[in-house]
Amino acid sequence: MSKPASTDAGKVMETIVSLAKRRGFVFQSSEIYGGLNGCWDYGPMGVEMLNNLKQQWWREMTYRENVEGLDASILMHPRTWEASGHVENFTDPMIDCKQCKSRYRIDVILEELSLKKKKDILRQLAPGAFEGQLKDEVVEKEFAARTATDAAFQGILPLISCPNCGNKGTFTDARKFNLMFKTFVGPVEDSSAVVYLRPETAQGIFVNFLNVQSATRQKIPFGIAQIGKAFRNEINTKNFLFRTREFEQMEMQFFVKPGSDDAHFEYWRGERIHWYESLGMKKENLQWHRHEPGKLAHYAKDAYDIEYRFPFGWGEMEGVHNRTDYDLSRHEQFSGKSLKVFDEDTKERFTPYVIETSAGASRSFMAFLVDSYHEEEAPTAEGGSETRTVLKLHPLLAPIKVAVFPLVNRDGMPEIARKIEADLRPQFRVFYDESGAVGRRYRRQDEIGTPFCVTVDSQTLADRTVTVRHRDSMRQDRVAVDALRRFFSDAFS
Amino acid sequence: MSKPASTDAGKVMETIVSLAKRRGFVFQSSEIYGGLNGCWDYGPMGVEMLNNLKQQWWREMTYRENVEGLDASILMHPRTWEASGHVENFTDPMIDCKQCKSRYRIDVILEELSLKKKKDILRQLAPGAFEGQLKDEVVEKEFAARTATDAAFQGILPLISCPNCGNKGTFTDARKFNLMFKTFVGPVEDSSAVVYLRPETAQGIFVNFLNVQSATRQKIPFGIAQIGKAFRNEINTKNFLFRTREFEQMEMQFFVKPGSDDAHFEYWRGERIHWYESLGMKKENLQWHRHEPGKLAHYAKDAYDIEYRFPFGWGEMEGVHNRTDYDLSRHEQFSGKSLKVFDEDTKERFTPYVIETSAGASRSFMAFLVDSYHEEEAPTAEGGSETRTVLKLHPLLAPIKVAVFPLVNRDGMPEIARKIEADLRPQFRVFYDESGAVGRRYRRQDEIGTPFCVTVDSQTLADRTVTVRHRDSMRQDRVAVDALRRFFSDAFS
Repeated sequence: MSKPASTDAGKVMETIVSLAKRRGFVFQSSEIYGGLNGCWDYGPMGVEMLNNLKQQWWREMTYRENVEGLDASILMHPRTWEASGHVENFTDPMIDCKQCKSRYRIDVILEELSLKKKKDILRQLAPGAFEGQLKDEVVEKEFAARTATDAAFQGILPLISCPNCGNKGTFTDARKFNLMFKTFVGPVEDSSAVVYLRPETAQGIFVNFLNVQSATRQKIPFGIAQIGKAFRNEINTKNFLFRTREFEQMEMQFFVKPGSDDAHFEYWRGERIHWYESLGMKKENLQWHRHEPGKLAHYAKDAYDIEYRFPFGWGEMEGVHNRTDYDLSRHEQFSGKSLKVFDEDTKERFTPYVIETSAGASRSFMAFLVDSYHEEEAPTAEGGSETRTVLKLHPLLAPIKVAVFPLVNRDGMPEIARKIEADLRPQFRVFYDESGAVGRRYRRQDEIGTPFCVTVDSQTLADRTVTVRHRDSMRQDRVAVDALRRFFSDAFS
Repeated sequence: MSKPASTDAGKVMETIVSLAKRRGFVFQSSEIYGGLNGCWDYGPMGVEMLNNLKQQWWREMTYRENVEGLDASILMHPRTWEASGHVENFTDPMIDCKQCKSRYRIDVILEELSLKKKKDILRQLAPGAFEGQLKDEVVEKEFAARTATDAAFQGILPLISCPNCGNKGTFTDARKFNLMFKTFVGPVEDSSAVVYLRPETAQGIFVNFLNVQSATRQKIPFGIAQIGKAFRNEINTKNFLFRTREFEQMEMQFFVKPGSDDAHFEYWRGERIHWYESLGMKKENLQWHRHEPGKLAHYAKDAYDIEYRFPFGWGEMEGVHNRTDYDLSRHEQFSGKSLKVFDEDTKERFTPYVIETSAGASRSFMAFLVDSYHEEEAPTAEGGSETRTVLKLHPLLAPIKVAVFPLVNRDGMPEIARKIEADLRPQFRVFYDESGAVGRRYRRQDEIGTPFCVTVDSQTLADRTVTVRHRDSMRQDRVAVDALRRFFSDAFS
């Protein structure tokens, strides 16, 4: 019965962004002032869904004997980011046009060149090597290969024009632009007072490794899990919640004995993909992407991303990485504090390896939103058919758990419905609605993914039963009023 | 049986800070690098307790028909802070010593002067007015009165010496120092790219007022609630989690019709103080502080703080404020967007008044920690007595809900205990411990406030019952293993 909402990726995203705003999932940040690029606010439905998602992750990851929780501050000692390599390496290459003073990220300029222009450049770079007809794929591939390094950038710069003023050869050399937001602590704005908004939550875990270990008396292997905001001064934000400047991560770093790292890596890969599936994400929209050995981050021994098939293409939702002992070793080196642990077997001290599972809360929120979005033909009360929009969210993720309606606003129905609402409210996020035709009320709940609607009707007056309508199947059961709490406790456990 | 842990306030705080670190409630941020002043990390026990606290607040405030949730971004459009008045007014007066270049907050310098010095200054400021013996209270009061304004600062500056180099008359004039952290969005660090880390969460609610209202179809009166981090570049951080640079707020803004504001104000005052009491905070440690009419913030019509009796004195934990239509009017003015609502009765549009309940999550976390801290004499297994440290946290706030012990590590007891642990774990944060004497295991749980300990002993092998030990009374009940889940479901509902 389901069909893709639209074959046009841009249209699908537009529909979802529009629903997200209209129904209170996601608003542009500070929208009344024109918005702040790369920042988004979660509305009444969004914050419930995001909290549900984070709570599910937290239970999944920390209700284990060997994983501890943490909530480290966003502002950290600046040496942290020297040790982590972010001060030196967390950069994008930027160029300025000397003519018109426009500033660009060089990889973006290159990406946005036309195929024809790319072909031109290839021919100028290697005269004779690219003659005759060239397939588009060949051009793209060769161009990407020849622009993959810093040195290559410099060679290409004289060949391209400024997208703003159109002049050629007016670019400065490429400079590194650090993606960390910086600010100043205390009253003096000088370099000694610089601190950064953390660009990832992981380092908060590494610097607390010993504190957590000694407070909890955990032994290797064990993990530390954290949910929190991180910030990156992205030059190009895009795709709704996918690439933003402010975002939330759900990370777990698992500390293991070197040599056992591959086994733990496999274990956590299994655990993590299973989590998305257990919350109803469609298998066909999930895939693993392994980082090629030559393209691994400097700290990584192996790395897989869990990708989701977004309307704009496959995109990373979570990374499972073997970070080796890189981080702890660097922090040892920069802090002068030993971060080694004692091995009871060999009686030697060693620096643990780290298996990391790093999920984007904001990205997986968007993935669950996209994945649950359906447009379906549904029968109307009059015997016809209409298109209904329904978010088939897992009940544990749904922002509203139960909606309660009186069929009509008389004969004591509203009073009974209110009573049911009050009875359920302490346990569940419930919603009461008495306005409009009941069919329209169902549709409004479908749009925000409410799994169950309870309707009080004339039969209720006779036998104290109500209809419980299931969102996905639209099946309606009769349930005794007095059995509702138990019914929903079971449904959401 | 309870007694104050110590009569010395500093000592009490020291004891609690030390417990907080040792048992994993709160660590200094980036401690291995010497810490970052005014920033703290929540460890494994702290994050559970903080999350419990936030979750209780969220349920209390948003599981209502007329309150919606929100999670706005930390970075907001900079016009927001012009409208709110923070760019202009959220400042501390600072001075520099021209000699040694030290920088000070002038109110702090004045506060830290000796009584003798204050007396000297009073006599110089008003020759003849303060002759003979002066009571200390009179000096403090007069000095405070004469240093309460910006103009007064300037007159006093020539009379005081630099605390660092000791020179007198070397201070610059006082300048305003803004307490907002600023950073730059995008690649260019100029004034057009300045954004601020929000110094309060409230404005995220005001700028989203219309979006929330139209997505939810709420009508006045209704509220919007939010939990989130805020940042203030405090020059003097102090008292552990009380005055920090990074902190978390739990705020609700309730939008009402002008004229009904006083009644709503009283309602919310009642609701809010009751919340702390319902979570077990001692009444004698809570008080209302009303802002004197002459000292109200520029936006406020009336304001009360809920204060807690911290070891260092009474301190604000939450403010309940009547903010009038100040904020919405200012945002209307600065954004050019109407934020008025339609009155069905009078058929006129009006700007709602706002009743705000603004609680510090970090501060109330600390208050609950302090409030629950007890040192008591308790009997030992050998018939003697010892001092036990116990956090008498409300069960809903306790980080670990149930600890499970085998009495000894043999006879199948560990296996049964493991089975109980596994059975409870999906629902509760549980902890398994088999090391050391059971009395010591109880003490360890007392220190982190675990409400129940389950012990598997030899009788368990005979009749499938365990002891359930209550933290505060230390009473021990026998409960059937099969009834444990129900027992704890009831205890934590």
